[in-house]
Amino acid sequence: MYQAGVDIGGTNIAMGLVDEALDVVQRESIPFEIKGGGERTAEIIHEGTLAMLKRQGAGISDLDSVGVVVPGSIDPTGSTVINAYNLNFHNEPLKAKIQKQFGDIPVFLANDADGAALAELHKGAFVGCRTAVLFTLGTGVGGGLILGGRMFHGGLGNGCELGHALLVSGGEQCTCGNKGCIEAYCSATAIIRDAIRAMEKHPDSLLFERTMGRPESMDAKTAIDCAREGDRAALEVFHNFVDHLGSAVASMINLLDCERVAIGGGVSAAGEFLFEPLRKNVHAKSFFENHGSVVPAVMGNDAGIIGAAMLRRNEE
Amino acid sequence: MYQAGVDIGGTNIAMGLVDEALDVVQRESIPFEIKGGGERTAEIIHEGTLAMLKRQGAGISDLDSVGVVVPGSIDPTGSTVINAYNLNFHNEPLKAKIQKQFGDIPVFLANDADGAALAELHKGAFVGCRTAVLFTLGTGVGGGLILGGRMFHGGLGNGCELGHALLVSGGEQCTCGNKGCIEAYCSATAIIRDAIRAMEKHPDSLLFERTMGRPESMDAKTAIDCAREGDRAALEVFHNFVDHLGSAVASMINLLDCERVAIGGGVSAAGEFLFEPLRKNVHAKSFFENHGSVVPAVMGNDAGIIGAAMLRRNEE
Repeated sequence: MYQAGVDIGGTNIAMGLVDEALDVVQRESIPFEIKGGGERTAEIIHEGTLAMLKRQGAGISDLDSVGVVVPGSIDPTGSTVINAYNLNFHNEPLKAKIQKQFGDIPVFLANDADGAALAELHKGAFVGCRTAVLFTLGTGVGGGLILGGRMFHGGLGNGCELGHALLVSGGEQCTCGNKGCIEAYCSATAIIRDAIRAMEKHPDSLLFERTMGRPESMDAKTAIDCAREGDRAALEVFHNFVDHLGSAVASMINLLDCERVAIGGGVSAAGEFLFEPLRKNVHAKSFFENHGSVVPAVMGNDAGIIGAAMLRRNEE
Repeated sequence: MYQAGVDIGGTNIAMGLVDEALDVVQRESIPFEIKGGGERTAEIIHEGTLAMLKRQGAGISDLDSVGVVVPGSIDPTGSTVINAYNLNFHNEPLKAKIQKQFGDIPVFLANDADGAALAELHKGAFVGCRTAVLFTLGTGVGGGLILGGRMFHGGLGNGCELGHALLVSGGEQCTCGNKGCIEAYCSATAIIRDAIRAMEKHPDSLLFERTMGRPESMDAKTAIDCAREGDRAALEVFHNFVDHLGSAVASMINLLDCERVAIGGGVSAAGEFLFEPLRKNVHAKSFFENHGSVVPAVMGNDAGIIGAAMLRRNEE
């Protein structure tokens, strides 16, 4: 039997056929049609799934479930996309529309960050864990919780907004309207903000040289690369980032005593240059001596497909 | 059948016999003998329980379980008190010693803050909840988590240190060694610290008048009373406290999407003077419009006895 895993993004619908060993044995990537709405999206998912099954020499009777993740909020029953701004889905009853295409085959719907944590649980950094936290550091800070060995949807079914726990109450402005959220300190956007400030303050820095002093040329990779090359201004930004990320991770450890915290997203590509000082910082702030580990997330681009494909298993 | 609930404190061992309606039908309070260690403590618990059963016209065969909570850390198997400083228990195999006294009757051991959350779950503010957070504001900030409708011991069995999640990373010094923990902003101790600072800065304040300018005369109740009477210096301290407590509560709501957050401990006696602005503050910072509620904890002094008595039920 196969599970279909579908990761809907603003540009493409990435789909995969996942076998019992959790390998992605077939893939499809079909442009997302923003004007097509839920109806057309459901059709594309159905067509893509049939194409993958056919290439695999299998039929619809070999399909166990269809799991779909979206970059947005899902209602507590897992039926409706409340808001997915990139997809222009608002109160979109997506599950029912996909279900209509697939008849009796069970369809599951979840948030993509929650799905990413589920992918780590079944195939990645969280295998064997019952309590774990995934932070995905990108434009914002997303993430998901594993509690009791399952993906946690939130107590009221709203999901988890890890990026919007407060880290420096009253501090930097966050996009959500609060001041001092984890996202305002630990996202790639936060690194860029601080690197631009540092570059403007230190015109003799490598940060300035690499961007020719243009704020719009700054990105998180440039900032981290400058730090790696020993630029003092960039190192200050980087140390500050590590200190805040360390506080965010230690908060989860002190609060949930989790077995593992994984860090994913573009910033985590910095590798041991990030993880080595991060682990020291977290250890110093952990209340428990024998605290959980801090590791890179491993699922990368397949997190969506695998996480979506595992949604049925999460319900068992 | 009855459950014995035992709350070991540095001064007294408070015990109760709890019936099936969760009423405390008999009580005992016996001085804690710090020199007696675990052995003597176990004897006292046994003697006290027999005395309560006798007064109730019942016998040992009517006793279903013995639950014990202590102000300290418990090992993941619930057998050993790792550290309970007030009791001078260190790596004390308390469960086995109590078990020896009670023979076949099951004995359970837990941290008192976790037990308080369990008491709220079975009889108090969390009845019917599956996801809830208790903050107990006192000298420190304790608390407990209800996840999946049960008391949560932490993912690695170390428990939850809610007071030591970071709230203002890099901020006020905390007793744990970190800077900016929830405890450093939301405890009675934090109110006292800030009220003393305000009093020293404003010798014309009611805060100064009430304490005659003596730091050692300041307590949280005085500070809150002064705020209630409109003293500007005290109000600033109080608003700052509400803002930080609001951030701590909103963090739990954004992170866990919990159904309810309860606030207990001495400070919560401030009632609606605290809860009304706190709810507004939390609502403004909550990511989800339909977020969980913020309520006073209700179990008060019985939290220990009832929580301990419910430990068996928590395992079912």
